[in-house]
Amino acid sequence: MPKQSKPPFFGEPPGVAEGDRFKTHDDLYAAGLHRFRGRGISGTEKTGADSIVLSGGYVDDVDGDEEIIYTGAGGRDRSSGLQIADQHLNTPGTAALVVSQARGCSVRVIQGLDIRGGKPKGGYRYRGLWQVREHWFTIGKEGFRICQFRLTKLHSGEQPVSRPVAGPPDTPTALDEQTQNYIERERRKRDSSVVQQVKGIYDNRCQICGERIQVSPTGVAYSEGAHIHALGRPHDGPDVPSNVLCLCPNCHARFDRGALQLSDSLMVIDGLTHAERSRLTVDPAHAIDVAYVRQHRSRWANRDSAPESPIGTRA
Amino acid sequence: MPKQSKPPFFGEPPGVAEGDRFKTHDDLYAAGLHRFRGRGISGTEKTGADSIVLSGGYVDDVDGDEEIIYTGAGGRDRSSGLQIADQHLNTPGTAALVVSQARGCSVRVIQGLDIRGGKPKGGYRYRGLWQVREHWFTIGKEGFRICQFRLTKLHSGEQPVSRPVAGPPDTPTALDEQTQNYIERERRKRDSSVVQQVKGIYDNRCQICGERIQVSPTGVAYSEGAHIHALGRPHDGPDVPSNVLCLCPNCHARFDRGALQLSDSLMVIDGLTHAERSRLTVDPAHAIDVAYVRQHRSRWANRDSAPESPIGTRA
Repeated sequence: MPKQSKPPFFGEPPGVAEGDRFKTHDDLYAAGLHRFRGRGISGTEKTGADSIVLSGGYVDDVDGDEEIIYTGAGGRDRSSGLQIADQHLNTPGTAALVVSQARGCSVRVIQGLDIRGGKPKGGYRYRGLWQVREHWFTIGKEGFRICQFRLTKLHSGEQPVSRPVAGPPDTPTALDEQTQNYIERERRKRDSSVVQQVKGIYDNRCQICGERIQVSPTGVAYSEGAHIHALGRPHDGPDVPSNVLCLCPNCHARFDRGALQLSDSLMVIDGLTHAERSRLTVDPAHAIDVAYVRQHRSRWANRDSAPESPIGTRA
Repeated sequence: MPKQSKPPFFGEPPGVAEGDRFKTHDDLYAAGLHRFRGRGISGTEKTGADSIVLSGGYVDDVDGDEEIIYTGAGGRDRSSGLQIADQHLNTPGTAALVVSQARGCSVRVIQGLDIRGGKPKGGYRYRGLWQVREHWFTIGKEGFRICQFRLTKLHSGEQPVSRPVAGPPDTPTALDEQTQNYIERERRKRDSSVVQQVKGIYDNRCQICGERIQVSPTGVAYSEGAHIHALGRPHDGPDVPSNVLCLCPNCHARFDRGALQLSDSLMVIDGLTHAERSRLTVDPAHAIDVAYVRQHRSRWANRDSAPESPIGTRA
């Protein structure tokens, strides 16, 4: 039985007024207030978000009468309720709120009441229509990246400051190119599941220097996924494990600038002196494709020789 | 005498046809093709860019009949023509091209001919109207961040795939909120002159561990400007030297996650064990404000104690 059968609907459903109270997610669903039962954000990247439920879930949330800071979905451990991984725009709910911001959709806000142990013991109150004004990424108290949204209240009769939508709200083409590019870029920047997998193999320990950067008392460590053949324009390397290294930020900075390179036999080479330094740590479960290693070297080849004449200035 | 007197004009000026040749920047100006004499990009963040001159100036440029990859302005040494600093969106020309992309403006492309020693010895050819499709940041051959733009050709009579402009093109309000936010965010992310100044004081050497990450044979080093009271939403710390440290990426990752902190007397503290580690290197020319140091510590206070009950899940 499909749980999310209603089409997206923006605005106030008939028969509902601000301040109305509801006992359960099923009641919210029946009233047309929140289509995605049991989830915090209703909506997907295709449609934008039409409603959210505040349930005091995120330690970084701020809640006010005119302004709400709401943390996106994802990266939380179901049983402990703790943030255990970075948030990114692969999560449909988080991407949906970015789309709502770009489109200027109104968002119904529903507040959980009397939150204890992460559960709203007092049911829910409908808090009217709001608009997403901006979003940003920051590092939450628990040491992981979170995506936060600032929403402001739309007063009775106030229309959202909307950009015109080019088609019906559930048409993919209604999503303007710039927002789509933004989401795509954020996705590529953030840790893909491929990067997570490679980091897991090495427990966040740098494959070049062995450094492991512990950043929280609970043992959380920070490392970076380095694409050998670089991701993104203009390089367009693939996001596959055989193209990814688990590095500390210092080795990553050097590798991305060609100051560290790899030989075909996976020796670490000093890109400035061309001296071999050490052997790359490679787990048997992690095959690295030598084609990417060669592409990386060729990108930084021939740069030691200064040009004979100035290469030119914008004229 | 004001050199840039003409108002911005998008499209083809009367009396000019694709393929027309011109001897100098003054001739381009007189024909209405390029308003900013002697510069690569004509336009500002307010107006968008209405024309660009290709002069083979950037080693990363690609030039084709249907697609051009064009590198933004800034960060180049006038005498050597070499890239000596990161590019960012503080440079008017680069920001102007981002605005042209967002607005869907057409851009006149003018090509320098017979480039030698960075000068177009053969004059200029007008190459018609183009549109900015996307842009990205990458690391150029010389080891610095550059901003690149992909432009595609608009064929005779073809209209740019434009978003409607809400006002005349030189009205600041015509710049949509999302583009403005993007430019603002990129500016804050990229090195401000304040960060450059602090990095200069320490010659890119980490104030915590002393590491200096050399990334090019010519001696270029990489470091990061760490804001003690974090920049950007939701923290909104100031971009002033007394709030900035010059750190290596590893110490920066630890500092931004509270795994390294500072005492009032500027001792480096292990944020996980609370043990003092060493003294922060501070140059006499660099006064650090203890108020920011305290704000940073308070941000990471009380996070070792795990919550008694789960903080909550999105319900």
